[in-house]
Amino acid sequence: MDLKTNIQKKIDSKTKPIGSLGLIENIAQKIALIQKTTSPKLENPCIVIFAGDHGIAQEGVSNYPQDVTYQMVENFLNGGAAINVFSKNNDLNLIIVDSGVNYDFSNRKDLIHAKVSKGTKNFINQQAMSPSELEYCFELGEKIVNEIHQNGSNIIGFGEMGIGNTSSASMIMSYILDLPLEECVGVGTGLNSIQLNKKISILKKSKEFHGAISSTKKILQTFAGFEIVQMCSGMLKAYEKNMIILVDGFIASCAFLSAKKINPKISDNALFCHQSAEKGHSILLKEFNSYPILNFDMRLGEGTGCALSYPIIASSVQFINEMASFESAKVSQKSND
Amino acid sequence: MDLKTNIQKKIDSKTKPIGSLGLIENIAQKIALIQKTTSPKLENPCIVIFAGDHGIAQEGVSNYPQDVTYQMVENFLNGGAAINVFSKNNDLNLIIVDSGVNYDFSNRKDLIHAKVSKGTKNFINQQAMSPSELEYCFELGEKIVNEIHQNGSNIIGFGEMGIGNTSSASMIMSYILDLPLEECVGVGTGLNSIQLNKKISILKKSKEFHGAISSTKKILQTFAGFEIVQMCSGMLKAYEKNMIILVDGFIASCAFLSAKKINPKISDNALFCHQSAEKGHSILLKEFNSYPILNFDMRLGEGTGCALSYPIIASSVQFINEMASFESAKVSQKSND
Repeated sequence: MDLKTNIQKKIDSKTKPIGSLGLIENIAQKIALIQKTTSPKLENPCIVIFAGDHGIAQEGVSNYPQDVTYQMVENFLNGGAAINVFSKNNDLNLIIVDSGVNYDFSNRKDLIHAKVSKGTKNFINQQAMSPSELEYCFELGEKIVNEIHQNGSNIIGFGEMGIGNTSSASMIMSYILDLPLEECVGVGTGLNSIQLNKKISILKKSKEFHGAISSTKKILQTFAGFEIVQMCSGMLKAYEKNMIILVDGFIASCAFLSAKKINPKISDNALFCHQSAEKGHSILLKEFNSYPILNFDMRLGEGTGCALSYPIIASSVQFINEMASFESAKVSQKSND
Repeated sequence: MDLKTNIQKKIDSKTKPIGSLGLIENIAQKIALIQKTTSPKLENPCIVIFAGDHGIAQEGVSNYPQDVTYQMVENFLNGGAAINVFSKNNDLNLIIVDSGVNYDFSNRKDLIHAKVSKGTKNFINQQAMSPSELEYCFELGEKIVNEIHQNGSNIIGFGEMGIGNTSSASMIMSYILDLPLEECVGVGTGLNSIQLNKKISILKKSKEFHGAISSTKKILQTFAGFEIVQMCSGMLKAYEKNMIILVDGFIASCAFLSAKKINPKISDNALFCHQSAEKGHSILLKEFNSYPILNFDMRLGEGTGCALSYPIIASSVQFINEMASFESAKVSQKSND
C-alpha cells in the first residue's frame, strides 16, 4: 500500500464513524503526508513576526502613525500584544524579527536584527527597494528560518507587523493575480469609506506610475515591504526543510502567494490558519484552494491566526497518534450497508 | 459606567485596532458579562459525557449495533476515544455518566452511575420513559452538575453518546420548533440515502402515533433519551450556578433547546462550540441566534466540539486579562477620522 492509503486506513480504523471528525482528519492527513509517516510529530512550534516600515505610509494609507510599528515591536518584546498572550497560552515559541523598522532597537532576547534599511521607499513614484535590498531580504529570510529549523522546529507560523503593509500586500496581490485593485484593497486597521477611497486612489496612482510588471521578484522589489519579502523567502526555506508552514491572514497570504509563484510545490506544506476580515483574503484562500481552520472575523496580523489555530493542529496530530482503533478498543464496526 | 460599557472600554483599550480580534472579543465580553467582572476567570473546566441507550435503535435507525454505546463508554474509560485525546490535549477534566446504558459497568474512577434504566423504550408505539423516570433524570442531571460546581468548576461542556440518539434529538427538535421531520433528520453516524429515508419514515410513523404534544417535559418523556434529559437538567443547573455552558453538536443542542424552553435566560450563559455537519444543527444555531466557534464539518458528539474550542475560549479570557493597553504599552492610538 502507498503512504496515503496507509494514512487513510489508520484514520478510518479509529473508534468513530468514518469521516466524522471532518477538518481534524484532513489536517492529520496533510501533516502525515508532509512528514511521510503515519505517526507525525510537531516539534518546537514557533511563530516568527517580521516587522518593517513602509514608505507608502507617508501617503496616509493607514489611520495609525508610522511610529506604531516600532512601538508594537517593543510591545511584542515586553509581552503585551495579542500574539504574546496567544503564544503563551498555546506554548509557542515567539520570535521577533526587525526586518526594517524605522527605529534603533537595543539588543534584546527574542529580537533578531535583520534590518535591511529603516523602512522602504514610497512606491507611489519609485521602487520600494533596490535589487540588492531585495536579494539581501531573501538571504536574511532564508537564514532566519534555517536557524529555527536547526534549533529543532518542524512547524512555523509566519506573522507580520508594519504600518502601511496592507497597501503593499494589496499591490502584490493585484499584480500577481491580475485583479483590479478594488478587489484587493480593504480597510486595514479600520479605515472609513472616505479613507478607503483615498487608499484605493493612491494605489491606483502607483499602479499607473509603474505600469505592467510580470516577474514576481520585480513585483516584490517595487511594492513589498522588507517583512513581506523575508516572509516569502522564509516560507520557501521552510518548504525546503520540509517544515509545516502556518499561513496567517491577508499579508502573510500575499507573501505566500509570492512564494507559491516562485515554487508552486510549497502548497503541499501549508496550512491556512484563518480567514481574515480583510477584503481580498477570501479571494486568496480560494486561489490556494484552501479551507481556513478558523473564521473569526479577525484582522490583526502578528501571526494571531496561527497561534489561535495551533491547538487545533496539535489535536489533529494527537488524534492520529493516540486515539484507539476499533480493534484495540473492541468496539463493533458499522453494519454492512 | 455600567458593566457592559466597562468591559467594552477595557477591550477597546488593548493594543490592537478596535474590533480586530473579532469573535475572540465577543467571547471575552460574553464571559465577562456572565461573571459580572472585567477580569473573568476559567476554573476547573470539564467535559461531561452522558451516555444512554435508546429503544428506537431496535428499528435500525443507526448503522451501528446498540452494543456500541457501552463499548464506547468503555473506550472513554480507557482513554481511547476522540474526546479523551482532545480533553487531555487541552487540560480538561473528563467525566463519564452512565445515564442509562444497556450494560452493567463495574465501579470505575471517572464513571458516575446515574442509570435510570437499561435504555429507553422504543418510542415508535410508546413513550420512551415514564413520568417518574423523567423526573428522576431531572434530579440526577441537576445533582451531577451541582457536584461538579461544588468541586470548583465554572465552565462545563456537555457531550453525549448513545446509538439512536440523533433520532431522539430530531423528534425533540421537530416537536419544539414545529418543523417538518425532513428538516430535522440527518445521516447521524453516516447513513446512505436509503437508510436515511427509512429513518425518516420510522420517525414519521412515531409522530403519527403520538400526535400533537405541547409541553416540553412531555416531549422529552415521549422521545428523549435519559442522557438528553440529564443534559437538559444539567444545563439548567449550570445556569442556576452561573457556570459557562459549552454546547456541543446536534444532540447537545437539542438538549439545550429543551432547557431554553424551560428557562429562556439560559442563553446568557451559553457558548456554541461548533457547527455540526448533522442536518438540523444549522437551523438550531440560527434559532439560538448564535455564531459557532468552529465549523469543521464534524458529526461525532462526545463533547468533541467543546474540547476543541476550549483553547480558543481560554485565549479569549487571557486576551482580556493579560494584553497590554495603549497606555501601559505606550503605543500611539489611531489618528482622528
